[in-house]
Amino acid sequence: MNDLFLRSCRGEAVPRRPVWLMRQAGRYMPEYRAIRAKTDFLSLCKTPDLVAEVTLQPVDFLDVDAAIIFADILLVPEAMGAELRFQAGDGPVFPQPVRRRQDLKHLHVPDVEATLGYVFEGLRRTRKRLENRVPLLGFAGTPWTLAAYVVEGGTSKSFPHLLGWSHRDPAGLAELLDLIAETTIHYLRGQVAAGAQALQLFDTWGGLLSLERWRQIALPPLQRIAEALAGQVPLIYYSNGTGHLLPALAELPVDVLSVDWRLPLSEVRRQVGSDKVLQGNLDPTTLLAPPEVIRQRTLQMIDDGLGGAHIVNLGHGILPMTPVEHAKAFVETVKARTLD
Amino acid sequence: MNDLFLRSCRGEAVPRRPVWLMRQAGRYMPEYRAIRAKTDFLSLCKTPDLVAEVTLQPVDFLDVDAAIIFADILLVPEAMGAELRFQAGDGPVFPQPVRRRQDLKHLHVPDVEATLGYVFEGLRRTRKRLENRVPLLGFAGTPWTLAAYVVEGGTSKSFPHLLGWSHRDPAGLAELLDLIAETTIHYLRGQVAAGAQALQLFDTWGGLLSLERWRQIALPPLQRIAEALAGQVPLIYYSNGTGHLLPALAELPVDVLSVDWRLPLSEVRRQVGSDKVLQGNLDPTTLLAPPEVIRQRTLQMIDDGLGGAHIVNLGHGILPMTPVEHAKAFVETVKARTLD
Repeated sequence: MNDLFLRSCRGEAVPRRPVWLMRQAGRYMPEYRAIRAKTDFLSLCKTPDLVAEVTLQPVDFLDVDAAIIFADILLVPEAMGAELRFQAGDGPVFPQPVRRRQDLKHLHVPDVEATLGYVFEGLRRTRKRLENRVPLLGFAGTPWTLAAYVVEGGTSKSFPHLLGWSHRDPAGLAELLDLIAETTIHYLRGQVAAGAQALQLFDTWGGLLSLERWRQIALPPLQRIAEALAGQVPLIYYSNGTGHLLPALAELPVDVLSVDWRLPLSEVRRQVGSDKVLQGNLDPTTLLAPPEVIRQRTLQMIDDGLGGAHIVNLGHGILPMTPVEHAKAFVETVKARTLD
Repeated sequence: MNDLFLRSCRGEAVPRRPVWLMRQAGRYMPEYRAIRAKTDFLSLCKTPDLVAEVTLQPVDFLDVDAAIIFADILLVPEAMGAELRFQAGDGPVFPQPVRRRQDLKHLHVPDVEATLGYVFEGLRRTRKRLENRVPLLGFAGTPWTLAAYVVEGGTSKSFPHLLGWSHRDPAGLAELLDLIAETTIHYLRGQVAAGAQALQLFDTWGGLLSLERWRQIALPPLQRIAEALAGQVPLIYYSNGTGHLLPALAELPVDVLSVDWRLPLSEVRRQVGSDKVLQGNLDPTTLLAPPEVIRQRTLQMIDDGLGGAHIVNLGHGILPMTPVEHAKAFVETVKARTLD
């Protein structure tokens, strides 16, 4: 197996940087769009054969060094009892948002085999079809980020319901975060049992909180998950717009910190120390530039990431309007850059 | 005149911190909603008597230490030739976005008296009705933030058109930013001539760029504006999610940096030095908490801001669902806290 990714997760020296792309199975690929033309998003997530197929598309086409199971972070709150809809153009919607302690009775810690077994089956079929070419990642959203969607009822610019609750009744919100954390622990253990060889936690909305409040509110349930999964497979924590949280992220019991493009990797490394493996951090809009600009920016990022282990990725998911040849130029640039 | 605000802008010692709120004339006030029930948003912006009325509402009701003229940052691109619509629920929309160099021919540097004279008239009438009770602020969006809306055609999560253009044709985007900068200089000079006693530049989307790219792309047109206005009235720069830009913001030729809640004021001060006056930075969602929590958080913020001049404000605009009594508790807490 190409184990550059797993060795980098463990901080081992490698002859070149491994590379994969967040949302690499997605709308920028014609092969993915062909499947979505016949299947709505949630049905795709829940059909293991199709999951395996779209998960493998970027491995075949881009020749990336890791696969990530095709799924959505919001499948977890749905399994907990929150009705979830994906509306074209509007993104995800929870028609019955959870906004007060009394609303918690509508949620429960589910039997993950019964409710999310399709993800596990997707992992097993993908592992089989991958034939150990590259490792397969599983993933989940963090409790804070999942709560953001469930409380707000969808996405938001300022998340007033979530943050209002956090100020008004922090103990009530902590109950919601704990419910999500417990479910997530079962879910991620199930993913490992089904063949996930590394796990990534997505914290899209972690950056909403100040460092002090992040430590009080978002960290405890996250820490609980990280501790429950420790020692099984490499654990990656992704967040966006969280440069102000680096002092806390440095202490997080995960192997890899996946960061956005706002701070150079060298500056992140200076703040978190060279023991933490870094993942990232090309601005995904760079892939809208001509290939020559993509190559130059990618090489600059690799150079900036020297001084410790580094898994090359974007700083956020690849954009749907990205030309596939540009994604390919990115991957090829990384692969051609050997380390001395 | 209550000159606590202007003295603080100049870094002078004051007996207590001045306080005002971004979007203090807004939907959280029943008096404002009563006017909006009869008048759409753009018509309100363009009716000087109503502008004066809503600008004064929070001065009368909250007893804040500064007034800010009621207007919208997007009136500037509209004056430059970009059709602007406000659609209920959807926010601002530019139906003909400017996305390539060829599109620049649809924009021009307008005669600001002819196109934005209603803002100047609103300032004159507000100054008259204020009778020097408190100073009156004018404002504008930064070129980068205005370009974000005009290029994207409205608001966005990731601004792919704007950022794509910045990678593909930085010189073309720089032309757009320069057109906006030149218009903004005329506009802000007109505001000062009409009675604005301080000016705030709003850079809502400044945080999208890394420090290196912010210096290359967003800073030059901003610097041009700041230099053109220097020495006339105090200049405030507001941005959001820009903790990673502080090394550059420290050098910006403005008097006051208005920051969000993500970093404590003491940490901002450590990075930008004690010469810069700070403004901010209570998380606006704090005002959804019970008054006792508001008081405690506000006092904590004031203590954290000691060690230099500080104008108390929120880290972002007040939310429409904020109870007015909570806004009042915030202002009263600041006013009761005298400095030794």
